[in-house]
Amino acid sequence: MIREKIAQAIGILSELEVDAWMTFVRESDKSHDPCLDIVVGGNVTWQSAFIIGRGGEKIAVLGSLDKAAHEELGHYDEIVPYVQGITEPLREVLKRLDPARVAINFSKTDEMADGLTHGQFLALQDILAGTPYVDRFISAAPIVSRLRSRKLPAELERITRACAETVDVFEQLSKVLVPGMTETQIAASIKGFMNGKGLLPAWDEAHCPAVFTGPESAGAHAGPTERPMEPGHLMNVDFGMRVEGYCSDLQRTWYCPRPGEKEAPEAVKRGFETIRGAVKKAAAFMKPGVLGKDVDAVARGHITAAGYEEYPHALGHQIGREAHDGAGLLCPEWERYGDKPYAEVEKGQCYTIEPRLTVPGHGVATIEEIVVVEDDGVRFLSKPQEELWYIES
Amino acid sequence: MIREKIAQAIGILSELEVDAWMTFVRESDKSHDPCLDIVVGGNVTWQSAFIIGRGGEKIAVLGSLDKAAHEELGHYDEIVPYVQGITEPLREVLKRLDPARVAINFSKTDEMADGLTHGQFLALQDILAGTPYVDRFISAAPIVSRLRSRKLPAELERITRACAETVDVFEQLSKVLVPGMTETQIAASIKGFMNGKGLLPAWDEAHCPAVFTGPESAGAHAGPTERPMEPGHLMNVDFGMRVEGYCSDLQRTWYCPRPGEKEAPEAVKRGFETIRGAVKKAAAFMKPGVLGKDVDAVARGHITAAGYEEYPHALGHQIGREAHDGAGLLCPEWERYGDKPYAEVEKGQCYTIEPRLTVPGHGVATIEEIVVVEDDGVRFLSKPQEELWYIES
Repeated sequence: MIREKIAQAIGILSELEVDAWMTFVRESDKSHDPCLDIVVGGNVTWQSAFIIGRGGEKIAVLGSLDKAAHEELGHYDEIVPYVQGITEPLREVLKRLDPARVAINFSKTDEMADGLTHGQFLALQDILAGTPYVDRFISAAPIVSRLRSRKLPAELERITRACAETVDVFEQLSKVLVPGMTETQIAASIKGFMNGKGLLPAWDEAHCPAVFTGPESAGAHAGPTERPMEPGHLMNVDFGMRVEGYCSDLQRTWYCPRPGEKEAPEAVKRGFETIRGAVKKAAAFMKPGVLGKDVDAVARGHITAAGYEEYPHALGHQIGREAHDGAGLLCPEWERYGDKPYAEVEKGQCYTIEPRLTVPGHGVATIEEIVVVEDDGVRFLSKPQEELWYIES
Repeated sequence: MIREKIAQAIGILSELEVDAWMTFVRESDKSHDPCLDIVVGGNVTWQSAFIIGRGGEKIAVLGSLDKAAHEELGHYDEIVPYVQGITEPLREVLKRLDPARVAINFSKTDEMADGLTHGQFLALQDILAGTPYVDRFISAAPIVSRLRSRKLPAELERITRACAETVDVFEQLSKVLVPGMTETQIAASIKGFMNGKGLLPAWDEAHCPAVFTGPESAGAHAGPTERPMEPGHLMNVDFGMRVEGYCSDLQRTWYCPRPGEKEAPEAVKRGFETIRGAVKKAAAFMKPGVLGKDVDAVARGHITAAGYEEYPHALGHQIGREAHDGAGLLCPEWERYGDKPYAEVEKGQCYTIEPRLTVPGHGVATIEEIVVVEDDGVRFLSKPQEELWYIES
């Protein structure tokens, strides 16, 4: 996959007319530039430059003790090791390529294209002081966003499998849920099913799965608590797993009936159907060329038109090697989203769609699905939740 | 431990006369600032500022959906949540503190103090544009290096336990080693012993343990290969584990005798004794106030005086929450080490001591121990390897 993504990167460099893209890192096991997972496939200890050229060049300049590991990976045709310092070999390589522009990994808004630390940016300026290249840096964000977004068939296949495995965990979970289980116990069941599959969570395990039950739950991004799922509660789970390095990220909603209740109360059903409608409308609206903010507005407007408060987050994010895979979002024009609302939806991208609303006295109704953008619209990679699920008592 | 380290940080701010230290992060699960592990203990999704003030202030400005998780952690007295953007609340908090200098996490040479990405540095300049604080940034490296280096008793206790567990793994390993085992098989045995203890590796599992056998091995930082341990080989292992978040990092050397050999050849014994002598001399030289480069020179000089080539790396690094814990190193004045050779050894610091040399035709002799700096010298936290270990055939 690394080899194919490097080939794709070379094509993107041509398309954007950028001569060279340099991933500059050190102690990358700790300060980990996310681009390493896409075009390197390993870590380094000392200052290292992984350079991909528009002409197909693949050159790594790195500390001598990291050489064997990267030769073994075999993704870079030329490996230039050094013992004392990177200055001389890096200058020599850049002089040879003589790029008019050198893309490096920084971005104010795209966290997946922002792996260069500020200290290493300053160090790079020192290393190249007096050469023309120090004034030729540009942000690699346009390269990185295209490279992560444009999913190869093999990447789509892995995300699809991750979705199917996650839906399967939800189905297994449905069979063991009983009133009175705490959020922590529900999370433990989910982890058990995940362990049974030999898979790992898609994000940090303290919050994957996230489980929320009832009207007083802590809300997204908090860990599971000792709160029990009681009759009358809406309970929802936010969960994803990795399959061969690619992620799912799905949410499902259950209702825990009160004694004697055959169906959920109208308010609960209406909340769930409003969410389901928001997902469907947003998905139907999406196609290449529409802006992320306009997709968000479709779902947000559907929810507020029904009289609910708007959700305090984006409608959806891209997904791939990471659950939050950076670049364009389906989000409102809020400060915290920077220029992301104005990104165009493009063919080959994968997005979550995850509106939410509160049903007073019951809890949160939310569904999260994953879609891939195709020529004329989107296709669901996850089997959608079509109806509210009930806890059997 | 987070609470104690924050208290320690407040003392260091006083000592350095810095009014405020701000850890500024977003999507920190992916772009992970190492300072989060020391003074936050959790992650965030949106732009967030964790501010510690010289007057004891502990203020976190973060996205509303991250609020519950950080309230639950309870390390910050004041949590200021926002929905749309961090600009207004962050400006308000800084105006209230009105710091003369604001330390932020960037450093050309100390990777543990360099968690701020360049894109977020630029974003921070936008956020604070027009305020006086944008011109009051300084590097937090002097704070971070002191905070990580000065081990609390509870931190020393964990490192000591990690060392003891690792030495125990080496002893278990010694009992199962036989000639012909490959590096991969030896690594698998080590992982089995580690799993039996329910512990995790101290660095990325592809290189932890690292195993090298014989004269043709790939050298430090490469993963284990299918190379078999043959009679006449020196075999060494570089391995560490985490105990309650704190690391060990130790190396041991074995000799695989040829048929009929009662003892290792003179050249092998001399190589091992030279390494052992280098460790002892360096440890005896270390005390508060000496420079890292001078400690390195003691060991390096001992090895070159015996006629061996010098090792192509530093003598030792600090260790703690990470195996490579940043700040001052015991290293030569090479470009790649920046200003690290000139750092003073201080009381409370923990260092590895890990010289190496090649015995032609046999392989690498190396020992890595861990010491803590005390008032007048150092104390070994690892039970040192005193003699060459033999493989039973």
